[in-house]
Amino acid sequence: MITIEGGGVTSARGYRAGAVMARIKPGSERPDLVLVCSDRPAAAAAAFTTNRVQAAPIQVDREHLEHGCARAVVLNAGNANACTGAQGVVDARRMCEVAAAALGVRTEEVLVCSTGVIGVPMPMPAVEAALPALANGLTVDGGPAAARAIMTTDTVPKEVAVELAVADGAVRIGGMAKGAGMIAPHMATMLSVVTTDAVIGREALQALLAAAVERSFNCVTVDGDMSTNDTIIVLANGAGGVDVGPGAPSHEAFAAALEHVCRQLARMVARDGEGATKLVPVQVQGALDEAEARRIGLSVANSNLVKTAIFGNDPNWGRILCAAGYAGVDFDPDQVEVSLCGVPIFRQGAGLPFDKAALSQAMRADEVVIRIDLQRGSAAAEVFTCDFSYDYVRINADYTT
Amino acid sequence: MITIEGGGVTSARGYRAGAVMARIKPGSERPDLVLVCSDRPAAAAAAFTTNRVQAAPIQVDREHLEHGCARAVVLNAGNANACTGAQGVVDARRMCEVAAAALGVRTEEVLVCSTGVIGVPMPMPAVEAALPALANGLTVDGGPAAARAIMTTDTVPKEVAVELAVADGAVRIGGMAKGAGMIAPHMATMLSVVTTDAVIGREALQALLAAAVERSFNCVTVDGDMSTNDTIIVLANGAGGVDVGPGAPSHEAFAAALEHVCRQLARMVARDGEGATKLVPVQVQGALDEAEARRIGLSVANSNLVKTAIFGNDPNWGRILCAAGYAGVDFDPDQVEVSLCGVPIFRQGAGLPFDKAALSQAMRADEVVIRIDLQRGSAAAEVFTCDFSYDYVRINADYTT
Repeated sequence: MITIEGGGVTSARGYRAGAVMARIKPGSERPDLVLVCSDRPAAAAAAFTTNRVQAAPIQVDREHLEHGCARAVVLNAGNANACTGAQGVVDARRMCEVAAAALGVRTEEVLVCSTGVIGVPMPMPAVEAALPALANGLTVDGGPAAARAIMTTDTVPKEVAVELAVADGAVRIGGMAKGAGMIAPHMATMLSVVTTDAVIGREALQALLAAAVERSFNCVTVDGDMSTNDTIIVLANGAGGVDVGPGAPSHEAFAAALEHVCRQLARMVARDGEGATKLVPVQVQGALDEAEARRIGLSVANSNLVKTAIFGNDPNWGRILCAAGYAGVDFDPDQVEVSLCGVPIFRQGAGLPFDKAALSQAMRADEVVIRIDLQRGSAAAEVFTCDFSYDYVRINADYTT
Repeated sequence: MITIEGGGVTSARGYRAGAVMARIKPGSERPDLVLVCSDRPAAAAAAFTTNRVQAAPIQVDREHLEHGCARAVVLNAGNANACTGAQGVVDARRMCEVAAAALGVRTEEVLVCSTGVIGVPMPMPAVEAALPALANGLTVDGGPAAARAIMTTDTVPKEVAVELAVADGAVRIGGMAKGAGMIAPHMATMLSVVTTDAVIGREALQALLAAAVERSFNCVTVDGDMSTNDTIIVLANGAGGVDVGPGAPSHEAFAAALEHVCRQLARMVARDGEGATKLVPVQVQGALDEAEARRIGLSVANSNLVKTAIFGNDPNWGRILCAAGYAGVDFDPDQVEVSLCGVPIFRQGAGLPFDKAALSQAMRADEVVIRIDLQRGSAAAEVFTCDFSYDYVRINADYTT
């Protein structure tokens, strides 16, 4: 598997994308409306937020996914179309309808994702006016522009693509994501679109996506707040002609590559967390199963006390132990070993001697790894978070009306 | 029920307390070692953190509570005696032993609580040297000094006492608490001692404490981090002669008064949260049962995004809905009504028009109430938290070694 430099959502064969400025957020002067289109029907799979409060586009996508294949995804920044009542659903459906008409496909072959302010009606005249020109201007080089246009408080666009060589050819998988907290003011967040030219049925694709999401987007936390809009969509259009379905020789390699793409995007989301100054991978091993490893990892990764200590370069292992302790996993603290930036700091129920000044210096790196070994099994998981700085509070406390 | 002005842990009859400076934390120049003593054996009940990582004093208290009655509690600030291995348990037991000898009671009649740095051995020579003089200097006026000496990063002592008039006399209940986050560096937190002169058996007292804790200390969150040391101890010495046991006419009134004392202390802990500028009660009503009301309240109260918005006086209702939505309660968002500072802001799945400037102004108060009505039942709960300011990050990021 090789990484395609500069690759993204149009790196796989048979996809085009583009972005235009629709002025969805009043006063915004940057592209905010995006189309990603497959030149043939693609098997479609998706995963959505489990929040009880779900944005209107998610309701429409669930209906359209019953159709089984998709041709396009329309995405916008600047308005989440969440908490917008019955009109929000009408508007989300209308976005699909207008995009479908412009592309010459059926309404139910278009999926929709929105990100931005919660509780504000979608400015439909602006969206409808912009869609036809957008649909006419899609290109195979449009991935980077699309990735940039879906950003809200993200500081960098998030794209990745890989090519997987297999016996009967090559498979490409590429994607983009946005998300950096559940962003102010009233913003609703994480969106990702991944495309592949592999041949695979919808149900098999859904199963692989579910597994990949468990190990990627479900292993990321910036602030523990789960958005009303979180969505990941995967399209497989078969343009590369390589079968990766269940039973195919490349099935497992494809699954691993899809997981890799999702993990890379998820890492980028954590690294670009609101106010973040560094990436914090929490690696848990020696667990009875992967679920409990992930539970402990997320508990540590969600701890404000751990995250502020890492911001302050403070090798504060008591907080790591404490957060692991309330994860709801029945481990024996006397068996746990913890290291920070590769330095062992806790073993046999007590702290180990270490050079505090040196470890604090090591924590000034761009990446601070916490490793926890439960020593009660052989399962492992890795969770990604970022540190917690003054800027998180500044970004989220500013009153903007 | 009347509040005893200036009352605390020695307001009930038959209790004395005191504090001395034992210099448990190197360089500290304030009292840090406390004794609370009953002049006769008291029924004892307690509740502890559910963290898998538990401080040594908790292990010793569990053993001593099997004895059923207690005479004293020894408490210290400056060292949590947590993550201190086998020596920590030896030290905690020794603190009880030395206090018992000084008071002329049995070792298993003494309970112990510690708060402060995690992972540092207790300075036992300092503790042992200070205990005899402390035991000799206990007074019925010692409550305020005791409440002050158990503070760590608390900015105010936390005490409350009430007197409950009943047919056959009066019952007094008083207590103290400390806690303000899981405080830097490596601090381990919430402690509370409540005393009463009522007559009640140990098992009935434990049952009432468990119910009161559900509605008080379990309804408070500053940062979602559950400490390794959280402990609440209740002593009932019967010095007032009024029976409040099961079947007694005052049983329910006593239960309500105990809950009131615990709730007042819990509110004080939330108000004094690290970096807090205001108290935030989250009132959830219309729930199917109290547990789901509490679950939604805690989800909202733990949301960094809600808490930073309140710090910024931003009437950001999308975040409240969102945090309620991921609480794991199967409610219908279209039925939910939300108000902020008494102003209705969300109903029937969409935001209501309101005067943003006026509501932002109202949020500058010392107390900002969030009310959520699920409209699916008749149960309610109230959870207390505080806002989330720059100072939380400052307090918790400062590297202090």
